[in-house]
Amino acid sequence: MRWDLLSLPACPAPPIPGEPDAPIVRTPVPGPRTEALRAQHGAFQDARSVHVYQDAAKSLGNYLVDVDGNVLMDLYGHIACLPVGYNHPALLAAWRGGRFDWCAGYRASLGVAPPEEYVGVIERGFMGVAPRGLSRVVTVTTGAEAVENAIKLAFIRYARDQRGGPATADELAACMGNRQERANRMKVISFEGGFHGRSLGALSLTRSKPIHKLDFPAFAWPALPFPASRFPLEEHAEENAAREARSLSLVEETLRAGDVAALIIEPIQGEGGDRHASPAFFRALRALCAQHGASFIVDEVQTGGGGTGRYWAHEAWGLETPPDLVTFSKKMQLGGVYLNEDHMPAEPYRVFNTWLGDPLRAAQLEVINEIISKDALLESTAITGEFLVAGLRNLCSTYPNLLSQARGAGTFAAVDLPDGPTRDRLVRAMQQLGLETGGSGERSIRFRPALIFTPKHAAEALTRLEHALTRLG
Amino acid sequence: MRWDLLSLPACPAPPIPGEPDAPIVRTPVPGPRTEALRAQHGAFQDARSVHVYQDAAKSLGNYLVDVDGNVLMDLYGHIACLPVGYNHPALLAAWRGGRFDWCAGYRASLGVAPPEEYVGVIERGFMGVAPRGLSRVVTVTTGAEAVENAIKLAFIRYARDQRGGPATADELAACMGNRQERANRMKVISFEGGFHGRSLGALSLTRSKPIHKLDFPAFAWPALPFPASRFPLEEHAEENAAREARSLSLVEETLRAGDVAALIIEPIQGEGGDRHASPAFFRALRALCAQHGASFIVDEVQTGGGGTGRYWAHEAWGLETPPDLVTFSKKMQLGGVYLNEDHMPAEPYRVFNTWLGDPLRAAQLEVINEIISKDALLESTAITGEFLVAGLRNLCSTYPNLLSQARGAGTFAAVDLPDGPTRDRLVRAMQQLGLETGGSGERSIRFRPALIFTPKHAAEALTRLEHALTRLG
Repeated sequence: MRWDLLSLPACPAPPIPGEPDAPIVRTPVPGPRTEALRAQHGAFQDARSVHVYQDAAKSLGNYLVDVDGNVLMDLYGHIACLPVGYNHPALLAAWRGGRFDWCAGYRASLGVAPPEEYVGVIERGFMGVAPRGLSRVVTVTTGAEAVENAIKLAFIRYARDQRGGPATADELAACMGNRQERANRMKVISFEGGFHGRSLGALSLTRSKPIHKLDFPAFAWPALPFPASRFPLEEHAEENAAREARSLSLVEETLRAGDVAALIIEPIQGEGGDRHASPAFFRALRALCAQHGASFIVDEVQTGGGGTGRYWAHEAWGLETPPDLVTFSKKMQLGGVYLNEDHMPAEPYRVFNTWLGDPLRAAQLEVINEIISKDALLESTAITGEFLVAGLRNLCSTYPNLLSQARGAGTFAAVDLPDGPTRDRLVRAMQQLGLETGGSGERSIRFRPALIFTPKHAAEALTRLEHALTRLG
Repeated sequence: MRWDLLSLPACPAPPIPGEPDAPIVRTPVPGPRTEALRAQHGAFQDARSVHVYQDAAKSLGNYLVDVDGNVLMDLYGHIACLPVGYNHPALLAAWRGGRFDWCAGYRASLGVAPPEEYVGVIERGFMGVAPRGLSRVVTVTTGAEAVENAIKLAFIRYARDQRGGPATADELAACMGNRQERANRMKVISFEGGFHGRSLGALSLTRSKPIHKLDFPAFAWPALPFPASRFPLEEHAEENAAREARSLSLVEETLRAGDVAALIIEPIQGEGGDRHASPAFFRALRALCAQHGASFIVDEVQTGGGGTGRYWAHEAWGLETPPDLVTFSKKMQLGGVYLNEDHMPAEPYRVFNTWLGDPLRAAQLEVINEIISKDALLESTAITGEFLVAGLRNLCSTYPNLLSQARGAGTFAAVDLPDGPTRDRLVRAMQQLGLETGGSGERSIRFRPALIFTPKHAAEALTRLEHALTRLG
């Protein structure tokens, strides 16, 4: 059906001047110029993962222009990293107007000699959007580094609480030999299907796919079942509740067994198949962690920054006690961890590194947050997400043999195909119709558009998705 | 003595127009404005490690201007991260002239849809300075991430060689449960005093100080003694050779015991006390690794990018067979790993992450490399380094109760104080005389100036260092 002929919900996000009206596909995607660049690039980097090479200057708003002149509506957003689309006029104006010039002449080690401007950027840009209850932030560079530092903060807090005094000489000697008994016993609980990054600490928590983990040493930490609600929720209430109860009982059992410094969970498993759980489940997890002295870490690397229609996905849970630690990266343009006062290390340099982030990316986030606020992009994303997910549900009814499990929070949405190969065929068919997208988990398609994605764009995407479905036959 | 009145060696580096002639100290360092900012900043970030807050716009060349108006000669370079000083005219001209504008409108996921410009930046900027024998590069963000990815590449290669075929279903299942027997047996050799980063994989290799390691789980990998040459070399030849022989024999024993996927070593231990070893030692290590099927990883995070007077410190070793993997970050402005063809994974997505670096920092490196080449900054750094280390040696003779062990390669130099507290007092005394510097290891002072540091600057630094020494008295 022509979703664009429906009456669309009103949405506050202003249009991006000059944004294309619709995708334009001039060549097969990827096109010949992308393939020529891939051959050149592949001689010195692994270019097999590249979808298309991008024309950075011509891309605008929700539309990625590739080097073959294809104009693709971007539903993938560089793996959920695109907060305000391409070349947003306010972001470019800030660049051209000199707002970032203090970042131009060198890259600072932000723990040693931060530029004066950085203090304001953190205070306004980062603390202005801090999750409720979290009064501090550590900036780093990537999502994996955010997770590594979050669990380190939890280990420090846990060891402090267990030790109840300064480290002994024996402990200091043991740590230099990688032989710390307490630390090597400490565990972090994560969940099956979870993704928390690929450095060896973070990767010990990641339980998404063998390709991420094969042949890499891992800490013997426990992974417990993620409930993974079935949709539509109203048809699966009992089953979903039973699955959550089972998961909670295993969490409690593992916490009772001891040595658990932290539990880490994504609000929506964003790599592991867009798997959801109820606010009640997360509230119960939070309470269990508090009860057993484990830090409760919410990994918002993929969900943070507005895609769910809230700045932080966990705002939807109605937590009485906030999380202890919240990680971020992606839409935030650099990685980091928000923490509460209890997780502030007593000594300096415990959580420290050379860069501690990047002044330019931090300064850009401040501008991005101004755009989000001025243009009401969270409200807009909530409205657009409702329209998008309703459309996906409608397509599930029309194509029940192909589509199921429409789900989402804001425009952070997904739908399932019967199996991986069919999903991959649909991704390719969508690309040929001008929709840049990607998979999630074994057989889902994920939607991670920018926050300037409005009902008009969703209607265009749904129309083309339906067209792609008819091509699958 | 007045080092600046000596006749200085000729040096090709052109002066930076407008650079101050000498430090100007207006307040105690850190000054009152730094302390006021620290109080503000400390409310939401850990600001205890900050030396001074910097006036980014006013800093120029080798001179860091702080918010109190102090003009400090920067011998520390943001922990060795300053390749061409502050606000180099060519770097600013590139920024202002629009050369980085393709990076302004969004931050790309470089493995998914890299901007076309990125291919050229990698080909010219990174492959143009690739260590001999290494034909590929993985860009990431930090030094720790570089190390994590280097050892992952080594694990993949080692498991491939051991397995001799595709992974079995049992192996794929075991990896999802963190229960891979082969991988969990695999080891990486590192060296006592080594620093390789702070994420849990990299931190298992780091053996510098307890503050880096206390309370964090670590893999049970072996750390072997680093020879740590005594200086002057001509007076300690026998002792140094004996220490190297002992270290090599322990390396061989550990390799023979099996399951060693890789060995990682810094050309100079840059955090662990500026500890050196001979080219012959490194050549022997390289040969042992080849003989026992372990990847030889040279960690050039701190030494790479020119500070030793060569682009890569390991060029000084006269290796017959190049390293398998070379890591970098710091002066390179972003992290990464150079690899040989044997370490290229057979499958895509084995070594992958969201950002895979940062297009802007990569593009800046290309410009930095142009400056290094045009202004002969490697040659200049070699000349300046000889003058600097000769001066430090001279000071060791004049103040034998305070200074010893002058050493360096290029301007990557150090000198020892009798103990940590005296070293810390000297660092503070140097700051009050306008020299921004920092410690290395337990009792060394490290010099990590930019590549535009010339004999004129070294003379000024030596004069003020001597003045600071007389104040310790």
